[in-house]
Amino acid sequence: MYNQTTGYLSRMIKFDNNRERRVRMYNPICSTVRQDAEKVKICVYDYNKDYVKQHELKDVREAFTFKENGNISWINIDGIRKADIEAIGEHFGIHPLIQEDILSIGQRPKMDEGDDIMYCLLNMLYFNEDTITVEQEQISIVLGKNFVITFQEDADRDVFNGIREKLNIPKSKLRSASADYLAYSMIDTIVDFYFVVMDKLSDKLEAVEEEIIRAASTRSLAQINSLRRELIVLRRNVLPVRDMVSGIIRSDSPLLDERVMRYFKDVSDHITQAADMVENYRDMIMSMQDLYLNKANIRLNEVMKVMAIVTCLMAPATVIGGIFGMNFDRIPYIHNRYGFFIAVALMLLVPVYMIYLFKKRGWFKRM
Amino acid sequence: MYNQTTGYLSRMIKFDNNRERRVRMYNPICSTVRQDAEKVKICVYDYNKDYVKQHELKDVREAFTFKENGNISWINIDGIRKADIEAIGEHFGIHPLIQEDILSIGQRPKMDEGDDIMYCLLNMLYFNEDTITVEQEQISIVLGKNFVITFQEDADRDVFNGIREKLNIPKSKLRSASADYLAYSMIDTIVDFYFVVMDKLSDKLEAVEEEIIRAASTRSLAQINSLRRELIVLRRNVLPVRDMVSGIIRSDSPLLDERVMRYFKDVSDHITQAADMVENYRDMIMSMQDLYLNKANIRLNEVMKVMAIVTCLMAPATVIGGIFGMNFDRIPYIHNRYGFFIAVALMLLVPVYMIYLFKKRGWFKRM
Amino acid sequence: MYNQTTGYLSRMIKFDNNRERRVRMYNPICSTVRQDAEKVKICVYDYNKDYVKQHELKDVREAFTFKENGNISWINIDGIRKADIEAIGEHFGIHPLIQEDILSIGQRPKMDEGDDIMYCLLNMLYFNEDTITVEQEQISIVLGKNFVITFQEDADRDVFNGIREKLNIPKSKLRSASADYLAYSMIDTIVDFYFVVMDKLSDKLEAVEEEIIRAASTRSLAQINSLRRELIVLRRNVLPVRDMVSGIIRSDSPLLDERVMRYFKDVSDHITQAADMVENYRDMIMSMQDLYLNKANIRLNEVMKVMAIVTCLMAPATVIGGIFGMNFDRIPYIHNRYGFFIAVALMLLVPVYMIYLFKKRGWFKRM
Amino acid sequence: MYNQTTGYLSRMIKFDNNRERRVRMYNPICSTVRQDAEKVKICVYDYNKDYVKQHELKDVREAFTFKENGNISWINIDGIRKADIEAIGEHFGIHPLIQEDILSIGQRPKMDEGDDIMYCLLNMLYFNEDTITVEQEQISIVLGKNFVITFQEDADRDVFNGIREKLNIPKSKLRSASADYLAYSMIDTIVDFYFVVMDKLSDKLEAVEEEIIRAASTRSLAQINSLRRELIVLRRNVLPVRDMVSGIIRSDSPLLDERVMRYFKDVSDHITQAADMVENYRDMIMSMQDLYLNKANIRLNEVMKVMAIVTCLMAPATVIGGIFGMNFDRIPYIHNRYGFFIAVALMLLVPVYMIYLFKKRGWFKRM
Amino acid sequence: MYNQTTGYLSRMIKFDNNRERRVRMYNPICSTVRQDAEKVKICVYDYNKDYVKQHELKDVREAFTFKENGNISWINIDGIRKADIEAIGEHFGIHPLIQEDILSIGQRPKMDEGDDIMYCLLNMLYFNEDTITVEQEQISIVLGKNFVITFQEDADRDVFNGIREKLNIPKSKLRSASADYLAYSMIDTIVDFYFVVMDKLSDKLEAVEEEIIRAASTRSLAQINSLRRELIVLRRNVLPVRDMVSGIIRSDSPLLDERVMRYFKDVSDHITQAADMVENYRDMIMSMQDLYLNKANIRLNEVMKVMAIVTCLMAPATVIGGIFGMNFDRIPYIHNRYGFFIAVALMLLVPVYMIYLFKKRGWFKRM
Ligand SMILES: [Mg+2]
Ligand SMILES: [Mg+2]
Ligand SMILES: [Mg+2]
Ligand SMILES: [Mg+2]
Ligand SMILES: [Mg+2]
Ligand SMILES: [Mg+2]
Ligand SMILES: [Mg+2]
Ligand SMILES: [Mg+2]
Ligand SMILES: [Mg+2]
Ligand SMILES: [Mg+2]
Ligand SMILES: [Mg+2]
Ligand SMILES: [Mg+2]
Ligand SMILES: [Mg+2]
Ligand SMILES: [Mg+2]
Ligand SMILES: [Mg+2]
Ligand SMILES: [Mg+2]
Ligand SMILES: [Mg+2]
Ligand SMILES: [Mg+2]
Ligand SMILES: [Mg+2]
Ligand SMILES: [Mg+2]
Ligand SMILES: [Mg+2]
Ligand SMILES: [Mg+2]
Ligand SMILES: [Mg+2]
Ligand SMILES: [Mg+2]
Ligand SMILES: [Mg+2]
Ligand SMILES: [Mg+2]
Ligand SMILES: [Mg+2]
Ligand SMILES: [Mg+2]
Ligand SMILES: [Mg+2]
Ligand SMILES: [Mg+2]
Ligand SMILES: [Mg+2]
Repeated sequence: MYNQTTGYLSRMIKFDNNRERRVRMYNPICSTVRQDAEKVKICVYDYNKDYVKQHELKDVREAFTFKENGNISWINIDGIRKADIEAIGEHFGIHPLIQEDILSIGQRPKMDEGDDIMYCLLNMLYFNEDTITVEQEQISIVLGKNFVITFQEDADRDVFNGIREKLNIPKSKLRSASADYLAYSMIDTIVDFYFVVMDKLSDKLEAVEEEIIRAASTRSLAQINSLRRELIVLRRNVLPVRDMVSGIIRSDSPLLDERVMRYFKDVSDHITQAADMVENYRDMIMSMQDLYLNKANIRLNEVMKVMAIVTCLMAPATVIGGIFGMNFDRIPYIHNRYGFFIAVALMLLVPVYMIYLFKKRGWFKRM
Repeated sequence: MYNQTTGYLSRMIKFDNNRERRVRMYNPICSTVRQDAEKVKICVYDYNKDYVKQHELKDVREAFTFKENGNISWINIDGIRKADIEAIGEHFGIHPLIQEDILSIGQRPKMDEGDDIMYCLLNMLYFNEDTITVEQEQISIVLGKNFVITFQEDADRDVFNGIREKLNIPKSKLRSASADYLAYSMIDTIVDFYFVVMDKLSDKLEAVEEEIIRAASTRSLAQINSLRRELIVLRRNVLPVRDMVSGIIRSDSPLLDERVMRYFKDVSDHITQAADMVENYRDMIMSMQDLYLNKANIRLNEVMKVMAIVTCLMAPATVIGGIFGMNFDRIPYIHNRYGFFIAVALMLLVPVYMIYLFKKRGWFKRM
Repeated sequence: MYNQTTGYLSRMIKFDNNRERRVRMYNPICSTVRQDAEKVKICVYDYNKDYVKQHELKDVREAFTFKENGNISWINIDGIRKADIEAIGEHFGIHPLIQEDILSIGQRPKMDEGDDIMYCLLNMLYFNEDTITVEQEQISIVLGKNFVITFQEDADRDVFNGIREKLNIPKSKLRSASADYLAYSMIDTIVDFYFVVMDKLSDKLEAVEEEIIRAASTRSLAQINSLRRELIVLRRNVLPVRDMVSGIIRSDSPLLDERVMRYFKDVSDHITQAADMVENYRDMIMSMQDLYLNKANIRLNEVMKVMAIVTCLMAPATVIGGIFGMNFDRIPYIHNRYGFFIAVALMLLVPVYMIYLFKKRGWFKRM
Repeated sequence: MYNQTTGYLSRMIKFDNNRERRVRMYNPICSTVRQDAEKVKICVYDYNKDYVKQHELKDVREAFTFKENGNISWINIDGIRKADIEAIGEHFGIHPLIQEDILSIGQRPKMDEGDDIMYCLLNMLYFNEDTITVEQEQISIVLGKNFVITFQEDADRDVFNGIREKLNIPKSKLRSASADYLAYSMIDTIVDFYFVVMDKLSDKLEAVEEEIIRAASTRSLAQINSLRRELIVLRRNVLPVRDMVSGIIRSDSPLLDERVMRYFKDVSDHITQAADMVENYRDMIMSMQDLYLNKANIRLNEVMKVMAIVTCLMAPATVIGGIFGMNFDRIPYIHNRYGFFIAVALMLLVPVYMIYLFKKRGWFKRM
Repeated sequence: MYNQTTGYLSRMIKFDNNRERRVRMYNPICSTVRQDAEKVKICVYDYNKDYVKQHELKDVREAFTFKENGNISWINIDGIRKADIEAIGEHFGIHPLIQEDILSIGQRPKMDEGDDIMYCLLNMLYFNEDTITVEQEQISIVLGKNFVITFQEDADRDVFNGIREKLNIPKSKLRSASADYLAYSMIDTIVDFYFVVMDKLSDKLEAVEEEIIRAASTRSLAQINSLRRELIVLRRNVLPVRDMVSGIIRSDSPLLDERVMRYFKDVSDHITQAADMVENYRDMIMSMQDLYLNKANIRLNEVMKVMAIVTCLMAPATVIGGIFGMNFDRIPYIHNRYGFFIAVALMLLVPVYMIYLFKKRGWFKRM
């Protein structure tokens, strides 16, 4: 399975409502918490305006030559191993603290500037339709003079296929631009994918709301709670990524070309929009919960009201039955031929009159 | 219909309470999400202090001549097509990212400055009296040295008729001023129209509140929810437009004359006022919901109280009936001529005394 | 009546709870919304340290001579007419946008600086004891080099009598100081009057709270709601006036003497205090509402509890009556001389024992 | 009593829950609101490193000589009279607006800088154990070149005895330092006393919480409300004093020695801690109120549940009694010797079985 | 026990729900509140790149020689005595106010800069598994030119064993770096330990949530409340430590090497993450409480509904019994052979039909 191949400890809050629930958090005191990945895949795109070549490497050390080979190089490493990070880190000038961040799990999205590099850590989000959960894959992006190194946890998926396609198009903006534009494209793609996840989450929200309106059941409440938890995962990613992008825009790193800044401002627009939408979803979930509780309450109250009314309507009949069931010698109408029918008629008429009264006061109207 | 002619996908949150509800959001990963408009209408106002001429164009390329013809030109394009935007964009120096914004749907209102242009994106709001919904039409305003280009989604409506009238008045401020004053007039008019929408929304609010006070029904709750959703549409427009106008005021673009700044400050006053009013409406809706729930609760409680009291008042009669219905040989008064009447009198007197007691304690008082 | 004489459209949120309610808002698109006042009263105080003269003018044009006559002149115009504002505006150098603000209704309190003038717009508040509402009268204060022009809506009332008295005292600070001190005195007086209004509102709050504690009724809830609305009027005035005064303090207008700044800081203290008090009143109203709802709930619960207990206590008697009312041939004690009394005694003793049990468990204790 | 001797109008919010409640606020329009104190006590500490002398003065004018006598002088005036303030103010260079602040009542704590003086206004707090209220005494501290003047409302109490003691110790820091250190000592002592008040309030909070846990009664709710009000008094003092101390730290007055600043930063730590504690108390009171309401609700629900269950359990017996009480000619078991006993046994067995069923479903379990 | 050996007064908010609860706060007016520790342990690590020696001292005065001995010295003092602090303070140049902070208890985490030292006060947190409480131990860190002095309350525990191990490793970063890196390592370790505490708290949270989902009982509510209180302890530490670390990063003290700043920024990342997690836990606790209350409510409502339904279903049988129990001469079917059975059948059929109706309306469905 996914978790096993990457040695990646599920660390986001996931609640399996009916049976078990696990909150696993990063315990930074245990420096060995990230197990080395079993499988590591290293892939380099080496390109310039007129040339592009894709290399599959066996060992991270083979990537060293791409540092200053004149072309722009995207070194993508799927599967994180401490030794690899340290080797790469030393050769490409990545500070030990940033190496630690790359190795960390459950880290808050962040941006950091080193002497000759810029570092971004954030999560790619996927929506798992089967478990209806938002899954995260941590990605580290290291931008250098003529290279971008990315560290992913999972070899089997990422969101960069669009970028790979554009790299193969000779005159694309991506091929002509410098390395910072490649880094921008990655962050932009990751943020764009947040909208895909939100879109799917929003479909689920709709489905649950429709279910509540049609026929609210305890299951609905469980689903609301579950969606709320997935939304928290989104929220915990979107808000710090907003800070991260602002940090890039404010940065005066020589690695960032003035013309690329405008592109980061565009990402900033999108992530701000995403933050707005997350807030809207929060409001929607809250009002869905209110709706559910109101509906549940109204249904219960209706039942109680009907029971109370029925019980109340039968009480006069009980009394009348009691009156003529008394053993007095002299009871009016007792020997009358129609006595019984008069009594039973009374038993019917009194509740009918009561119903008339109740109706007049609007007590049968549903609220 | 409106949506079909423009290829505009309804993307605001609309809930059709009783049947279906659709939350459609912009998915920025699908770059083809905005379908090209079927019909495009291009209209140019070319004017200076002494001269005004209105042109209907067939193709966007015909508009190129208006860029530097000495007059101020308002190029209004109804219906958005990718190819048109690119053509216009290249000739008038609109950055590809801004072109993307013009093409986007569901974008947050924003302001951007290019090399020789200033760009504003916001929504015109209309109140649809039939569906009781706030409808949006995205508008992009591009301000250049001597021209203003506007991109609208819907050819059949906008809020600029007042501006068109003033353009035909020879000595009007609009005719004498520079292009930035035209852009100001547009934003001012759009913001003024927010008040029209709020005014109508406020009328609906009043109507619902009166209905709740007169005779609250489940329909009222549905209406409150529906109004709350329309208010969210308003809120999501007003707050970012406030930021947008602040951005214009803080900007030091050479396109903005110092004397026009004072006019944008006036718009800022209005949009701040609008934001205040939106907050007031929110409070009003919240307290209306409280009012409804309180009234519903009070009515239910009243019913339950009456039922409980009636049931309780009849219990003694049942007991008395039971007492004299027992089959003991010796029962006092059983052979007495008035026995029955005494028993029935007791059945009446005990509840009467209970009513007296309850009343004394104020238990019949409505709360 | 007040509203008719001034053509002033009631524009604050007023709810007449039992019958009708009107939310009228300023629709800035209708530039003709403020009807010209029927009656206009113009009064000028012309003064310096040694001299004071009061003039009643027939036409605003007569006020022109006071602009640069060497003395300080307070031109007070009660009743707002478009033509007057334009005439005054042109002669005294008031920008058309500020003229628009003077004509506006429902405007948020604001401060603006023109080339040679400073402009303040705020509301005088009055507490109408009959309708228990906070009424507003918009006032515009234009401070120039040696003059202050004030525009009021209502000729029949303002809060400036204290200032008029001081103007007649030869050696008063007001007579010796420059025009900015007169403007300060006006704003100070208006803010001081907010406290008067709050004081009266607070008296009403107290009265309602006492009523709730003594005997809560539905009327109390209506009164709480009504007071809450009046508080919103206060709040919507106090908070922007605080911003307005801060704006004056930060301003570096040559019209404001450094020594007068200290006085505006004093106003700032007072308006901050007022904002604090408004927040306190909000808290008080909220906790009053809680108190009411708790009391209403407790009373209802008490009734329901008593009914449930009485019904429950009578059930055993019904059962016993039923037992001995069965028609079996052989029923113990049926022929016994004391059988009936034993049964009735049981009917009494069982509930007595139940009461004993219930009491022991504290179920009769009120919460 | 206290209020009479000082002519000090009780102006804090005090609620006497069971009988009456008075919210008296400062009405700044009535400039005569503070009645002149009947008794005034003036006491001067004149000291330097080697010398200390205490003087009791009859008239404020006698204090004039202490302004520039070379020593540091603490002039403490208990009891506030308008004429005294004006005399002192003129001689010691206190601006009329600051004189007004000294005379004010219900003023928000504030700091002000004059030409040669610094002015602080705050409240000393006392916890009145009898009425369980937080009482305030307004104090004005005027710091000059070599003097400190303090104005208190109440001659019979203040919190400065510790300072008086240290003044009598020859080599104490207080005796060696300049006048600003004396002012610091006063503010420090006042803030330290806030902790004493909080400590006592916290004891009361604990007592109420224990009472709620043991046996919640309506009295508890009243006590929670009352404590909440006292907390508001605290909160309204702590938060502005924090601003006041920040103002002193940011100030660049020549009256404040750089070395004394460090001491004010220490006061700032303490008042920040106090603000934190006030927030904690707020949370505690909120959760106490929740606890009370939950307990009250649980108890009521328990009663209702028991009543419903008992009523329900007796219904089958009523039905069985009714069945065998019918007057049909042929009723099974009616002539059977054990018929009656079988019926009564049924009346017992059915509820027993019902109890068994209910228990199995956990309906008797308390929540 | 712990508290006795150190003379440390338990000062965090601890609630022992069922019996007693104690809120003890620091009362800064009582300067003698911290009792002198009975036992004091002084331990010095004296080291440089090539050398390390551990000394156990008897008296604080022995530590004086380590101030300027060329090596870096970590002087750790377990157990706080006023006299020791004063001696150390005078020799190492610790300002009396910082000495006071070291002696204080219940102080808010803070950072302070002296002339030649930097001072940090914060709490080490431990999770006591037995009492399920978060315990605090106050620690003061004084960073000087070539020394670090730490003051701890409890000799029997701290979180620095990892540091002690690294000090014994010859070429470790710690041994090669300057004193500021040692101070960083301490703060980093303390913050890392907050995650350990949060991890354990999170385990408890999970356990309680599972219990609520399985079988909510009153105990669960008590546990939620208790966890909420422990979370407050965490929160009151995490938030001010975040401010403290920001203060260090902004500081321009010559004691802090530029290269060490990067490490403090790493701590800042961690403490920000911790603050995020605390907020998440708050949300989780809140939703757990909601979950509990909803479950409790649903269970109660279910019971009430069943009781109401059962009572209601039996009412018709009572009425039918009453009808045929009346003593009229002529009652239909009374002499019929199957009369009784028809009546009893009716008694069964009517409720069965009612059940059918109720089911059709969904009144038996659980919500
Ligand atoms: Mg991957
Ligand atoms: Mg994007
Ligand atoms: Mg894009
Ligand atoms: Mg929102
Ligand atoms: Mg919101
Ligand atoms: Mg964009
Ligand atoms: Mg249009
Ligand atoms: Mg406008
Ligand atoms: Mg306008
Ligand atoms: Mg508001
Ligand atoms: Mg609000
Ligand atoms: Mg305006
Ligand atoms: Mg007036
Ligand atoms: Mg004032
Ligand atoms: Mg005044
Ligand atoms: Mg003042
Ligand atoms: Mg408050
Ligand atoms: Mg005193
Ligand atoms: Mg202190
Ligand atoms: Mg102190
Ligand atoms: Mg301190
Ligand atoms: Mg809090
Ligand atoms: Mg707060
Ligand atoms: Mg807190
Ligand atoms: Mg809070
Ligand atoms: Mg320790
Ligand atoms: Mg760490
Ligand atoms: Mg670390
Ligand atoms: Mg890190
Ligand atoms: Mg939040
Ligand atoms: Mg959160």
